Amino acid sequence: MFKAEIKSDTLKGLVNVISTLVDEAKFCISETGVNLKAVDPAHVAMVDLTIGKGAFESYTADNGTEMGVDLDKMKDMLKLAGSGDILSMEQDESQGRLVIKVGNITRRMNLVDTAGMNDPKVPQLSLPANVDVAISELQRGMKAAESVSDHIALSADSESFELFCEGDTDSVSLKLDKNKLAGISATSKVRSLFPLDYFSNLVKAIPSDTVVKISLGNDYPVKLSFTFADGNGNVGYLLAPRIEND
Amino acid sequence: MFKAEIKSDTLKGLVNVISTLVDEAKFCISETGVNLKAVDPAHVAMVDLTIGKGAFESYTADNGTEMGVDLDKMKDMLKLAGSGDILSMEQDESQGRLVIKVGNITRRMNLVDTAGMNDPKVPQLSLPANVDVAISELQRGMKAAESVSDHIALSADSESFELFCEGDTDSVSLKLDKNKLAGISATSKVRSLFPLDYFSNLVKAIPSDTVVKISLGNDYPVKLSFTFADGNGNVGYLLAPRIEND
Amino acid sequence: MFKAEIKSDTLKGLVNVISTLVDEAKFCISETGVNLKAVDPAHVAMVDLTIGKGAFESYTADNGTEMGVDLDKMKDMLKLAGSGDILSMEQDESQGRLVIKVGNITRRMNLVDTAGMNDPKVPQLSLPANVDVAISELQRGMKAAESVSDHIALSADSESFELFCEGDTDSVSLKLDKNKLAGISATSKVRSLFPLDYFSNLVKAIPSDTVVKISLGNDYPVKLSFTFADGNGNVGYLLAPRIEND
Repeated sequence: MFKAEIKSDTLKGLVNVISTLVDEAKFCISETGVNLKAVDPAHVAMVDLTIGKGAFESYTADNGTEMGVDLDKMKDMLKLAGSGDILSMEQDESQGRLVIKVGNITRRMNLVDTAGMNDPKVPQLSLPANVDVAISELQRGMKAAESVSDHIALSADSESFELFCEGDTDSVSLKLDKNKLAGISATSKVRSLFPLDYFSNLVKAIPSDTVVKISLGNDYPVKLSFTFADGNGNVGYLLAPRIEND
Repeated sequence: MFKAEIKSDTLKGLVNVISTLVDEAKFCISETGVNLKAVDPAHVAMVDLTIGKGAFESYTADNGTEMGVDLDKMKDMLKLAGSGDILSMEQDESQGRLVIKVGNITRRMNLVDTAGMNDPKVPQLSLPANVDVAISELQRGMKAAESVSDHIALSADSESFELFCEGDTDSVSLKLDKNKLAGISATSKVRSLFPLDYFSNLVKAIPSDTVVKISLGNDYPVKLSFTFADGNGNVGYLLAPRIEND
Repeated sequence: MFKAEIKSDTLKGLVNVISTLVDEAKFCISETGVNLKAVDPAHVAMVDLTIGKGAFESYTADNGTEMGVDLDKMKDMLKLAGSGDILSMEQDESQGRLVIKVGNITRRMNLVDTAGMNDPKVPQLSLPANVDVAISELQRGMKAAESVSDHIALSADSESFELFCEGDTDSVSLKLDKNKLAGISATSKVRSLFPLDYFSNLVKAIPSDTVVKISLGNDYPVKLSFTFADGNGNVGYLLAPRIEND
């Protein structure tokens, strides 16, 4: 059983992040909140997202509830909601449907079969550099990077964090010194290369007032993590590196 | 002879409604105002629209004047007009043209031959249910409905009005109780099914501050009617039902 | 050597005007400012543009510096800049690159080979009619004209200035009397026909608060000239006439 109400802005942010990786996702629901783990079809990135009960306006659920949701349908409903609107959701177990309400509009949507959806195992990484940065800084950088290359190098030392894209004729860099960051710690200089589209899609999907923690190593996956709904929810996103051929 | 000035907003609303059904239309003009009747090529819907002299800023016309107008050209001119701008129109009988002015811009457009345009006969219907509803309520519902099905069921009883769309996997409903409506009267519960695209295009074309009267029966055409320009104009729109195959 | 800072709005206006004619352009740089002359591939129009040192926030350059610039890349950078942002540019002579900075973002772009770019010779024309007009008046006219024809006639006498488009079925005119103009002088009535797309693209590229001088003759090129950056820059644009076949 699952029945809950949530601010449309909160849900919108989450659905945008998840749908950079998958079209359908399995929500694992318990009495204390909702968890979702998803890996994109190419196995390049993974998201691990928890929405605590406190992120909801109201929340009732049984432990062990699972729902497979078509995220495009969820987005359709979110488009109807204005900022500040409350969305109500209720599982209709007898029909295998999720009933979503926004204002006077009710949509009953078939749930997706979760049989083929495995629970990815989230690796525990210990990464030597950590940068706290306002996502809005990165969002502008992404626009510049996209015209130049399809790879992006992230690097950090104890003084600064840099995004660097090198194309055949041009290069773009976004360099943020310590004083432009919410925090930085690095035991050494680290650098890894990533597919630009994954990184860019994620950065653009994150609500623009978010501060993101970027954890980085040398030719190692990057982890982006942030909280939402006054700390009642948190997202971890892992992206695999590309090998540099110099 | 026809010479008139009208607020661009007033004309814009009307042209948008008419052009959901036809690309060209015959305006029948008399000393007291303008009437237009049009049926779409598939004979599924009909509009009957009257613009009284009082809806114009200035108005001079001879009885029996007819003008065939290409609505896309009219729309082009309306795009040049800001909200509050006045549009002036004058028939140039010698050249078979309509001269439209917005600000310093003058467009002389060839009129369309009206020989092949018949005057459709507007049926008189007595419909058992009448609902008065703010069009803005329906506009949001249309956005939800379009992703689900290409038919829409309208139903009403003495307590509520409902729009319902059923697709293969999902359904969407917009239910408005008595207290969400400007008025409702129904002698019995009625329900009819309609093509969603016609209904949706009309709802989206109606200015968003309009209250519309929806007259409904059982497997019967729906009539939408509303006034504009402080009651100096009125629109009646009839849409044929689809047969339900349950 | 070239190193300068400029308001993004100033540069945006210029790049928009130049890129109606060419994709790549040669900037000829001296101690006192920058000059650019460009002819479109079809040799129908020419732009001659000077940006004085005073139009820049800071400016250092050696005489005889030349830079070939890909305007699309410049536009990409300008899209990152908000209104009021300062853009810094510096030539990297050793690598043949231009380094552009907006905020924390740096783009290093390869310069374009200027060997094949000739300096067009700007003809000196003495044109009998001169009209000073707010470009915003013309911008609205362009929207109306585009749906009607692909040629536009400009005419002027001592009392008024007119843009006229004649299509197969419709015509559009924008007529501005003396009192709607910032100035007009004409020794006789003059009229020339021009390709609408060139004229329209230019008019739309000019910042909307600009007053433009239009110099006109009989079946003769039109010259549009205007200043920018508080008179520190000026643009001359010449467009060849089309022959009228009446």
